[in-house]
Amino acid sequence: MDRLTIIKVGGKVVEDPQLLNTLLDHFTSITGYKLLVHGGGPLATKLAEKLGVETRMVEGRRITDQETLEITTMVYAGLINKKIVAGLQARNCNALGLTGADLDLVRARKRPVADVDYGFVGDVEDVNTRELRLLIGENVIPVVAPLTHDGHGLLLNTNADTIAARLGIELSHYFKVLLFYCFEKKGVLSDPADDNSVMSELTLQEFNQLRQSGVISNGMVPKLTNGYDALQKGVSEVLITNPDHFYRGRGTRLSRG
Amino acid sequence: MDRLTIIKVGGKVVEDPQLLNTLLDHFTSITGYKLLVHGGGPLATKLAEKLGVETRMVEGRRITDQETLEITTMVYAGLINKKIVAGLQARNCNALGLTGADLDLVRARKRPVADVDYGFVGDVEDVNTRELRLLIGENVIPVVAPLTHDGHGLLLNTNADTIAARLGIELSHYFKVLLFYCFEKKGVLSDPADDNSVMSELTLQEFNQLRQSGVISNGMVPKLTNGYDALQKGVSEVLITNPDHFYRGRGTRLSRG
Repeated sequence: MDRLTIIKVGGKVVEDPQLLNTLLDHFTSITGYKLLVHGGGPLATKLAEKLGVETRMVEGRRITDQETLEITTMVYAGLINKKIVAGLQARNCNALGLTGADLDLVRARKRPVADVDYGFVGDVEDVNTRELRLLIGENVIPVVAPLTHDGHGLLLNTNADTIAARLGIELSHYFKVLLFYCFEKKGVLSDPADDNSVMSELTLQEFNQLRQSGVISNGMVPKLTNGYDALQKGVSEVLITNPDHFYRGRGTRLSRG
Repeated sequence: MDRLTIIKVGGKVVEDPQLLNTLLDHFTSITGYKLLVHGGGPLATKLAEKLGVETRMVEGRRITDQETLEITTMVYAGLINKKIVAGLQARNCNALGLTGADLDLVRARKRPVADVDYGFVGDVEDVNTRELRLLIGENVIPVVAPLTHDGHGLLLNTNADTIAARLGIELSHYFKVLLFYCFEKKGVLSDPADDNSVMSELTLQEFNQLRQSGVISNGMVPKLTNGYDALQKGVSEVLITNPDHFYRGRGTRLSRG
């Protein structure tokens, strides 16, 4: 099987032009097929502020009303996605920007209202990679924004970590998939106050312990939950890493053990 | 040769949900391969107003500074493009949103500063349809936003009428191309004050006369100039029409005669 490297890059990297350039430079140097999934939360929050739209978060997740959906569509699918695509084209990578609506790539269901009404937020239902695989085979580099659709005309905000994991799982039927979660830290920290306390490996059991003791918290939890899910369902390797280290395979490797 | 219908839809149609729905319904009913190019100027102007960014136009063309480029990228490639893509997916059309940067579809050169500095505005240089043709053959419906790139990482604002014409010309090597310019009027009017004075046919000579006498003016001029250019360089048929009539082939047909 051919190798496919999926890089998920977080919003804090994307909003920093220097970090983004570093990432794109190193991304270009990866051999084999590749695919990029990006976030963009901080830039969406900034545009919302400029437009006087209040940003509401519950446990790190954005409440998405109609105005917020339009803002995230503009920022994720427009501003960020096209900046990355143009940046990759400048590096001779034939990039193609996508949301889950394009090519019917990721269908989702609007999250049912339980304790919290998240609004226009989608939980992934189906991943369809037919045309995507054809394009990857032509050395096209897909660049995926964290938006999905419900098949009835509605766009939905969807967690980028989840999209990366679900794409990885589906594509692992056709490729040997490496999944790199690339954010502003060097990996999973055993001491959140010490940026150099990177764990080189982390088992699911250790993760659960560190989660219970509060060492691993906030946005790191869904990232790791998605990572283990991918690892258990076909992805060959999952690495938590940063724009300076991912291409050398450094960071925290999730372990099945 | 297989038939490919290219519909260019203007910003005034796109910003009106009812007109847009009518257009998408009829677009879906067209048989054969198809491609959609959209504008979006009025919605970009609205977002600029909300953000307190001044919109400057010279002879109907937008002066594009850095802030305006970000606004048009968000509105064209994000808000409008994805709304159309999701709307087509809901109608079982496998749409794919693109800018000129995606798949290196349309390269442009930043317009040199002469009497006017248009800023980040691009004049089309190269059209590359390799991957696009592959996708069209798979019954994918490309939906193209009016942005191009310079190959060095810069996105550029580019006239949607021109993009439609240039795509039509390039694709006419592979398909029998019909190009429909779809806007809010029923066609080219012999009396600008009478919306029903639609000319069923218009030769280049007649166009030049009506242009000189001022009957045809403003945004209609570049549309028709692009239309005749397309007709002279390989496109089989060019029609100026509206969302209610294009699919029945009604409107003003440009004539080589």
